Amino acid sequence: MAAGDAAARDDGLEFWFDFSSPYAFFAAREVEAMAARVGRRARWRPFLLGALFPKTRMAPLTQQPLRGTYGLRDWARQARRHGVRFAIPDFFPVAAQAPSRMFLHLEQADPERAVPFARAQFAALFSDGIDISRPEAAAAVGARLGLDETALLDAAGDPALKQRLRDQTAEAEARGVFGAPFFFADGEPFWGADRLAMVEDWLRSGGW
Amino acid sequence: MAAGDAAARDDGLEFWFDFSSPYAFFAAREVEAMAARVGRRARWRPFLLGALFPKTRMAPLTQQPLRGTYGLRDWARQARRHGVRFAIPDFFPVAAQAPSRMFLHLEQADPERAVPFARAQFAALFSDGIDISRPEAAAAVGARLGLDETALLDAAGDPALKQRLRDQTAEAEARGVFGAPFFFADGEPFWGADRLAMVEDWLRSGGW
Repeated sequence: MAAGDAAARDDGLEFWFDFSSPYAFFAAREVEAMAARVGRRARWRPFLLGALFPKTRMAPLTQQPLRGTYGLRDWARQARRHGVRFAIPDFFPVAAQAPSRMFLHLEQADPERAVPFARAQFAALFSDGIDISRPEAAAAVGARLGLDETALLDAAGDPALKQRLRDQTAEAEARGVFGAPFFFADGEPFWGADRLAMVEDWLRSGGW
Repeated sequence: MAAGDAAARDDGLEFWFDFSSPYAFFAAREVEAMAARVGRRARWRPFLLGALFPKTRMAPLTQQPLRGTYGLRDWARQARRHGVRFAIPDFFPVAAQAPSRMFLHLEQADPERAVPFARAQFAALFSDGIDISRPEAAAAVGARLGLDETALLDAAGDPALKQRLRDQTAEAEARGVFGAPFFFADGEPFWGADRLAMVEDWLRSGGW
């Protein structure tokens, strides 16, 4: 991942996620506080994990034998531990294009609102059972935060943002991302929500 | 995993491992101290992870695209962090039958020596580059601990111990084990070396 290292170093801390990933949902609740503890800001980077499956030879976790069953149990107990409402909706997994493009739009148009928007999308999907793959649903979640609903809907269909999401997904692939969430901490890759403490140690210590 | 829960509860804390798993090597260095902190003893349970691949549809980590590269990097940094000599030998992955059968023999014949034997096998493989799939090599590692080398060699070829290892691997499969290390904490399944802290919390709190 030498090329990835060089590209990432300027970004400091990157949090790569797919809106359809339960582990990314849990990480999304923690990453901002973790970054603050080490004096960093996390750059949130949506991508489409499913687009990488041909290369990673993986499948959605819930469709994997044994791991899928374990995942359901693991998510439920993580939710209980943190007092979070959580359920895998009937329509899971979802296609994350619409909320991802809206996020990329906000990142340019209203950067301070992008992360709250992303957290609201995660909560809508996993706490409230809202199908955020539907642009109207994702935009309505944004509207509840006071964002411009029409602009969000436009973003979901914007060819430039579609390309940007494709490019970002290609970047993930090029840098060796194979799951979500995935972190780069000063270029060092970390996979999984249960590596947040290690990412924090890495950033605090400067690596080892 | 309801059936597994019932079967496991009497055992309290189980540490399932394959001698060929680097993550199990790292967990093996920590699990005894973790268990002691919560007033438990870990029951070490060798099994053959490769025998489960047809069911889990997985492959040795080093042979998986992207994850394999990441694994090599992750093991190296974990080793640096803990000051442990570590290298993936040329002959990796190894077949764990010989040391696993020897462990099962010691479990009956000299139970207090079984865990030190297992830790020595892990260190031989990952710190010293010894091919412990060879019965003679595994027995020689045991002999350095003062164990009866001939009895260990006999164990590697003992039909009853062969069957016992097959049965233990079948038990792992029946209880939903799909990776190594794998823990059951009062019946609750946890996968991965990076879940040791969660296992500890679970045991300390009685679960949640």
